[in-house]
Order: sequence, then C-alpha cells, then structure tokens
Amino acid sequence: MHPDVEPIGFLLGTWRGEGHGEYPTIESFDYGEEIRFAAVPGKPFLTYQQRTWALDDQRPLHAECGYWRPKPGGNLEVVLAHPTGVAEIEEGMVAGEIISLVATSIGRTATAKQVTGLSRRFELVGGDVLRYEVQLAAVGEPLQGHLTAELKRVDEG
Amino acid sequence: MHPDVEPIGFLLGTWRGEGHGEYPTIESFDYGEEIRFAAVPGKPFLTYQQRTWALDDQRPLHAECGYWRPKPGGNLEVVLAHPTGVAEIEEGMVAGEIISLVATSIGRTATAKQVTGLSRRFELVGGDVLRYEVQLAAVGEPLQGHLTAELKRVDEG
Repeated sequence: MHPDVEPIGFLLGTWRGEGHGEYPTIESFDYGEEIRFAAVPGKPFLTYQQRTWALDDQRPLHAECGYWRPKPGGNLEVVLAHPTGVAEIEEGMVAGEIISLVATSIGRTATAKQVTGLSRRFELVGGDVLRYEVQLAAVGEPLQGHLTAELKRVDEG
Repeated sequence: MHPDVEPIGFLLGTWRGEGHGEYPTIESFDYGEEIRFAAVPGKPFLTYQQRTWALDDQRPLHAECGYWRPKPGGNLEVVLAHPTGVAEIEEGMVAGEIISLVATSIGRTATAKQVTGLSRRFELVGGDVLRYEVQLAAVGEPLQGHLTAELKRVDEG
C-alpha cells in the first residue's frame, strides 16, 4: 500500500449493508448496498466500486465507480463516475475516522438529470461499521438529505 | 441486455493488448492494457473498467472506470473517472462499428494535471480486434495524438 493512502486505509475491503433514500420529488425507498475499496500496488489512491439493489427482488438500482486520492494535511480528493450521466469531483477532509466531502465539479451528459450539488459524510464506527449520509441538490431542489446507510465490513481484501 | 445497449453490444467482454503513448512533454512509452465492458441486467448502459501496465515489469500505470450510455439516433454518452483526478464526460456517435467521442466536460481536483481536451475513436476490426486512438490537450499543449492501441477480445463475458 502506498504511504499516501494510509489516512483512508480503514476503508479497505468490501462493505455490505442497507440504506434509506428520500427526496421531495420521489417516493422514499430502501436498498441493499455493496462498496469495495481496493489498493493498487504503488499507487497513491484507492479504487472505489459501489452498487445498490432493491431489497424486494434484488434488481440493480444505482452504481458508482471512481478513485479516492488522499493528499497532505488531511485533504481528500474523490473522482466519481455515475451511470446516470454524472461525472463528479468531490473534495474534503479526513479527520480520524470521519470523512467529509463536497462536490466541487459536477459534469453532466446532455440527457442526465439536473444534479447541481452533492455532499457526503462517512464515519467508521467501532472498526467494522461504516455509516454515510449523502446530501443532494437536483431538479431545482436545494441541497438536502438524500441517503443514509450503514454497512459492515465483510471482507478485508 | 437492455435493448438501448444493442448499438454498442459489440464491445461486450474483456479485451487485452498493447498500446503506444506519446506527448511533447513526456518520453514515449509502450503499455499493456485490459478493458472490460459488461452489461447490468435491465440497465441501459455498459460498465467500463480499464487498466494499463508497464511491459517491462508489469507495474500498474493508468486506469479508468465509468459507464457507456447509448442514446437514440446513434448518440453515445460516456462518463469516466480517472485516478489522476479527472472526471470526464465524453459525447459522440456510434456508426456501425466505429465510435467517435469528444470530451464535453472535464472536471479536475485541486491537484490534478491541467487536462483541457480529450477525444477518442474506437473501431472494431474483423469482429474481435478493437483499435483506439486518444487525442489529448493538456499542460498548455493543443489537442493532439496521445495514445494508440490494439486489443483482442479474450472473453465474451
């Protein structure tokens, strides 16, 4: 593992659990989720792959992929691609086992939904539980709570 | 496979081969590469994962991940994350077995290199060979040839 990755080394592995989503323009929903963070030999970032599914019939819902780049002074840069047509830069801080991020660039394809703001907070609880919250500004709505989830580490690899 | 994905169905599977890179600001280099395109049940996009390695000692070089979204009329939207701190939207056309894309949005983290333009052309040759070219504008240089590669399909899955 590259030494730059050490501040977010606690994310390594595969996480699985459930989350809850809400937004003024949609019906609230619950979902299953898996996130995998992996190191690449000699590289100063972690790879990130995420997917969610419906709890009733396991059909795929959302997905994301990207790279987490820790920088000196507790800074963190995250690059994310969404299959909804959104390419996102998030920047923020790692403070112990809490990560706070806010979108500093949101690129959209011609047919993507109008996403204008995103922020995220991750917290490691008790070593093997990861909680996160996502705030979203989209389709004319201001930034507000959208997702909360709690995942357990199921694989260190 | 979702019917919207059909125009780029010829990309499905795992591709492996070698490429050549050059740019006025760096030494030319050759690389090994693997690309994997996969479908997600019921979803109107393909997932895309790419990685390259040095031919001498197999150390990891570049990587990318993202999603390819075909749209009506031969249009194609691609969302890409790069571990170099770049989040990219490319848009273009699928014409038979030729794909042309140009970056319409390039987001960069605070510490990313100054990438200002990208375009790509993919061509399927003889059913199981994929050739591509990448043009890059970066660090003050105008858009110009950067990468060429030829890959063979090694897995249909």
